[in-house]
Amino acid sequence: MEPINVNDYEMQARGRLHQSIEDFYQGGSDDEVTLRENRAAFERIRLRPRVLVDVSQCDIRTAVLGIPVSMPILVAPTAAHGMAHPDGECATARAAGDAGTLMTVSSSASCSIEDIAQAATGPLWFQLYIDTYAQAKDYILRADAAGYQAIVLTVDLPRLGRRERDLRNGFRAYQAKHIPDAFSGHDMPMSSASAEGGTVESGTIPEVVDIGDTLTWETLDWIRSLTSLPIILKGILTAEDALLAVEHRVAGIVVSNHGGRQLDGVPPTIEVLPEVVAAVAGRCEVYLDGGIRRGTDVLKALALGANAVLIGRPVLWGLIVNGQPGVRHVLQMLHDEFRLAMMLAGCPNLQSIKPSLVKIV
Amino acid sequence: MEPINVNDYEMQARGRLHQSIEDFYQGGSDDEVTLRENRAAFERIRLRPRVLVDVSQCDIRTAVLGIPVSMPILVAPTAAHGMAHPDGECATARAAGDAGTLMTVSSSASCSIEDIAQAATGPLWFQLYIDTYAQAKDYILRADAAGYQAIVLTVDLPRLGRRERDLRNGFRAYQAKHIPDAFSGHDMPMSSASAEGGTVESGTIPEVVDIGDTLTWETLDWIRSLTSLPIILKGILTAEDALLAVEHRVAGIVVSNHGGRQLDGVPPTIEVLPEVVAAVAGRCEVYLDGGIRRGTDVLKALALGANAVLIGRPVLWGLIVNGQPGVRHVLQMLHDEFRLAMMLAGCPNLQSIKPSLVKIV
Amino acid sequence: MEPINVNDYEMQARGRLHQSIEDFYQGGSDDEVTLRENRAAFERIRLRPRVLVDVSQCDIRTAVLGIPVSMPILVAPTAAHGMAHPDGECATARAAGDAGTLMTVSSSASCSIEDIAQAATGPLWFQLYIDTYAQAKDYILRADAAGYQAIVLTVDLPRLGRRERDLRNGFRAYQAKHIPDAFSGHDMPMSSASAEGGTVESGTIPEVVDIGDTLTWETLDWIRSLTSLPIILKGILTAEDALLAVEHRVAGIVVSNHGGRQLDGVPPTIEVLPEVVAAVAGRCEVYLDGGIRRGTDVLKALALGANAVLIGRPVLWGLIVNGQPGVRHVLQMLHDEFRLAMMLAGCPNLQSIKPSLVKIV
Amino acid sequence: MEPINVNDYEMQARGRLHQSIEDFYQGGSDDEVTLRENRAAFERIRLRPRVLVDVSQCDIRTAVLGIPVSMPILVAPTAAHGMAHPDGECATARAAGDAGTLMTVSSSASCSIEDIAQAATGPLWFQLYIDTYAQAKDYILRADAAGYQAIVLTVDLPRLGRRERDLRNGFRAYQAKHIPDAFSGHDMPMSSASAEGGTVESGTIPEVVDIGDTLTWETLDWIRSLTSLPIILKGILTAEDALLAVEHRVAGIVVSNHGGRQLDGVPPTIEVLPEVVAAVAGRCEVYLDGGIRRGTDVLKALALGANAVLIGRPVLWGLIVNGQPGVRHVLQMLHDEFRLAMMLAGCPNLQSIKPSLVKIV
Repeated sequence: MEPINVNDYEMQARGRLHQSIEDFYQGGSDDEVTLRENRAAFERIRLRPRVLVDVSQCDIRTAVLGIPVSMPILVAPTAAHGMAHPDGECATARAAGDAGTLMTVSSSASCSIEDIAQAATGPLWFQLYIDTYAQAKDYILRADAAGYQAIVLTVDLPRLGRRERDLRNGFRAYQAKHIPDAFSGHDMPMSSASAEGGTVESGTIPEVVDIGDTLTWETLDWIRSLTSLPIILKGILTAEDALLAVEHRVAGIVVSNHGGRQLDGVPPTIEVLPEVVAAVAGRCEVYLDGGIRRGTDVLKALALGANAVLIGRPVLWGLIVNGQPGVRHVLQMLHDEFRLAMMLAGCPNLQSIKPSLVKIV
Repeated sequence: MEPINVNDYEMQARGRLHQSIEDFYQGGSDDEVTLRENRAAFERIRLRPRVLVDVSQCDIRTAVLGIPVSMPILVAPTAAHGMAHPDGECATARAAGDAGTLMTVSSSASCSIEDIAQAATGPLWFQLYIDTYAQAKDYILRADAAGYQAIVLTVDLPRLGRRERDLRNGFRAYQAKHIPDAFSGHDMPMSSASAEGGTVESGTIPEVVDIGDTLTWETLDWIRSLTSLPIILKGILTAEDALLAVEHRVAGIVVSNHGGRQLDGVPPTIEVLPEVVAAVAGRCEVYLDGGIRRGTDVLKALALGANAVLIGRPVLWGLIVNGQPGVRHVLQMLHDEFRLAMMLAGCPNLQSIKPSLVKIV
Repeated sequence: MEPINVNDYEMQARGRLHQSIEDFYQGGSDDEVTLRENRAAFERIRLRPRVLVDVSQCDIRTAVLGIPVSMPILVAPTAAHGMAHPDGECATARAAGDAGTLMTVSSSASCSIEDIAQAATGPLWFQLYIDTYAQAKDYILRADAAGYQAIVLTVDLPRLGRRERDLRNGFRAYQAKHIPDAFSGHDMPMSSASAEGGTVESGTIPEVVDIGDTLTWETLDWIRSLTSLPIILKGILTAEDALLAVEHRVAGIVVSNHGGRQLDGVPPTIEVLPEVVAAVAGRCEVYLDGGIRRGTDVLKALALGANAVLIGRPVLWGLIVNGQPGVRHVLQMLHDEFRLAMMLAGCPNLQSIKPSLVKIV
Repeated sequence: MEPINVNDYEMQARGRLHQSIEDFYQGGSDDEVTLRENRAAFERIRLRPRVLVDVSQCDIRTAVLGIPVSMPILVAPTAAHGMAHPDGECATARAAGDAGTLMTVSSSASCSIEDIAQAATGPLWFQLYIDTYAQAKDYILRADAAGYQAIVLTVDLPRLGRRERDLRNGFRAYQAKHIPDAFSGHDMPMSSASAEGGTVESGTIPEVVDIGDTLTWETLDWIRSLTSLPIILKGILTAEDALLAVEHRVAGIVVSNHGGRQLDGVPPTIEVLPEVVAAVAGRCEVYLDGGIRRGTDVLKALALGANAVLIGRPVLWGLIVNGQPGVRHVLQMLHDEFRLAMMLAGCPNLQSIKPSLVKIV
């Protein structure tokens, strides 16, 4: 059956990968309370639609950090697309570009920084984990050189969360890690393991987060010493940290709980968005990921002050089901749902989306 | 088994029509959150009954826009009754008249404006979609000429909502549309398709909402240039729009979310009724539809300030199960339930129904 | 299995009577929202126990309207005990007396006012429906003469509620009605019908509530013209009516929603108890019925200001399962549970039960 | 399968003991509302994690009443470990010591005060029930002599709660009681009964709580006349009693509802922790037990002001599944989960855990 919404892709993606990989993508940490709440929280927000507004020219184009995009829906960084599809991040990047939007490439990508850049037809950001300073420096310089337009530093992973599905499966997430060397150019082993449904050989791959638990706000200065790219912090969940981020002159914040995969029990992102937006007070851009499955979710996030949202798992589901066209379709569906939601809410453009559009119950 | 309440009719109506038509009537948009909430919200309202009041002469007659009706329960506009019963809206109109109440005829009726007027034994309002100005003008003039007593302009459908049941069924709502030409007089094709359970041929029928997304408050002036009938706006969900409606001198407002069929995530109607009533402050009449299944629901709506309620799906269920007598019975049951609810609540007349009769929990 | 709590009696009572009688006892009105909420509301109240209080002499004896009782747990009026057990109300009255508490006899009792009085070993109140003034006068005079100590006027039944189980079963509640003539002395027909599981012959029995919907506060004067017995009003759910009751010098109020059998959607009794208690401000006694199944429920009701509670269905379950000893056991279990709850809450006597003992969440 | 969390131990422990013993350990009182709420309440607390804090040296060591422990997670007193494992409390004590933490030994232990002390490799507290003053005096003196470092007086058991599972099983809790005579040295009969799955012979064992319902705040003076050990009160659930405890110079308070086994309907412990902490205002230590199953639960309790938490049933599950190593593993898992939760929350040490780390929703 032709998928008509993002949830259809989720259902169709089930059973196509080795269970341990599917679990890696789908799972959260501990009891998955935050994972569930990411969705449930959207249902506690009411939309307050306005009527008799001419919405025939509804325009959803916008810009993030000055980069024009077709819609305020971006691709979130997720690990190891090579496990989902042989073309890995290259397929995703092409699909994002086709959809006119921006992709955030993960430090744990299956394809190399350069290959993705070459494949991409749209703007790219680079998500950064700092395992060792040497490797991180290498990534930053390569991303900068390859034309990536921002560094998205993940700040909610001083250690890997307790993802119990992975613990039970004996799945080592960081088998799925490390961007392939730009010069070798081959995919990471996990990709073929995935294709064959075989067990994963972790061999000599080192643990990812070596110095992750030592990062501080000073780390931003170190990044700035290497690149002039704007820095975005991904994983902020409090007004306090949002203020610190502004003080440290970040270009953007991603309100994120890592898809419910790090500390279980943290709030759903949409629930804390207002406090972050209020703290930031327009001094940097604010994005949100976590649980976006509907155009109306996007509308709610924007009404509560987000500049844009990022989607993670839905992109993977599209990639699993149908590669590049699957991702493209997922993005298109969200585009269309969001635009229709705006029209039905009486919003002819993004500027007309205001806090009064929503009510939290 | 003889139905003893509206829910019985819903259950007995199941399985009698082609599944795609049943889905069209029953379904909501997206995840049907608003559809479910329309019902759930009534359970969050407590009735505070008064005792030792003489209610032996309990009188529930009222008037809407000066039109006397037997009860504050009217028939909401719903599409294409010909899909539910061969007699279509003519049966419904006769049943409403028998019950002493008013019917709102849909722009998407299966019978012609004139045929319904001829069949009707009670007052009629005409619900208007504006697809093209020419067609809308034709409808308005014909409705006026045929004795309809108000124009109910639907304002929550700049575009059709995402009704996923219909999307999956390949059901095109507007196959069910367009009032038959007054001169041809025959039913719309859908009606027979329904009877035969066959597939629907959409053929040359144009999309309904052509200019719907361009309507503005000025559209009311255009309607007023064609008719002196009072204008009611259907689909208001905010105090802001209620105020604008009053400023634009409408005669009435229907607090409606289109039965959960347009923008999913908007509030249940009973939840926003108080803010609309407060904004209007008596300057026009306020009605409510959405989720009314019990006499106590009517009582709650009136206590929160509605002048009357409109019922949609229950009328269709009655029509499906038993045609005109089925609709008549549904209306009678709600009449009796509502009157009994008033008596048990200590309300001898509609004037005694006050906000203190309810408490929202 | 030996029942160890009231719920066990409910389970053991199932299936012992003709289904239509069981439904009559168990059912509520409409969608039974209030019926369910009567129980659920108790779970939203937290007990705040105190420690290191000497509770070894815990005393739960009290008095209602000056009548000493062994505990603040009385027998509520319920209809037609002859349907539950051949000995009918006589068995119940003996059990209540054995337990040292008071029974409220229903106007719809299966046994005569006099027979119950003769059987009783404890104090009695008489619950009054006024169908006709002649009959009501007869009841009042007989109750007074037979030594009943209060008239409990039910004020929430101007009409019978919509008990859909009975409607579906064709069960006419008032087949179960009318106290047998004192001179004929035989049980009502329903009792044998029950025993045989046969259909009920309603014959010439008139509808109960003839003038019930005309009662007003002046009706109290009429009762006072016939008897000097104190008057209690059963069925008050608002502060407004509680104030009126005080103004009309009633001796007591029963906060009751008729076990969820009259107007569906009214609040659970424990939820409105505080507003009634506040309004009364000690000027009359306040009792509560509805959903009491545990000793902790009694404790919560008393903490929120009730002088005593009345139990209805649990008494019937005891009667169905084991006649007089069954009722006696039910009362004993509640006695013991309540006393233990007091001890565990640090309450050595009823005076120590204060509002600070509970918190509503 | 190797257990990876505490819930795994619970599942693996099922079915290993005679059902009546499992029910004794697992059950709560009455309807087990409080038992369920103890868990559910933790899900209503959100963690607010901070980022970019160097947590590489995360230190979770602390001290309770000046006694150094490896973590703020202690072993709660639970009855009759001999029913769970032949080695009884001796196994538990060794496991606690191995984990670097403190064990609270129950008055109802299967092993003698002295045997446990001899087996223990870490600090011990002694939980006291006062059945008779003679026996209690004997316990206190022996505990003091054996090196126990505090008396934990249980104050929420003036009488035994209504544990209906035990009532149905005919299980007499206090068959599981009485510390074996120091001189006889043999285990209590229950232990073998458990091993054989046979019925329990209660024989001549007296009821436990003889004078429990007469205890008052003066009882503390009596204890102080016997020992200079610090006194901790276990079972406080209100600010009022917390204040009294401070006035009576206790060294610590355990916010506890006895694992939902005493008065059903009292609040979950985590819900009342804030009011107790506020009342105490640092004048004594505050601990919490009840429902701790995750490292994040510990973090929430500490953020709301607890000095440490105690775990009861999880220790038993470990003991049932694998004796001493099982308990050791349970403690290690909670240690690791808690430390990781701190790191993911941005807390480098216990001092950094503040109320702003949580939000109650």
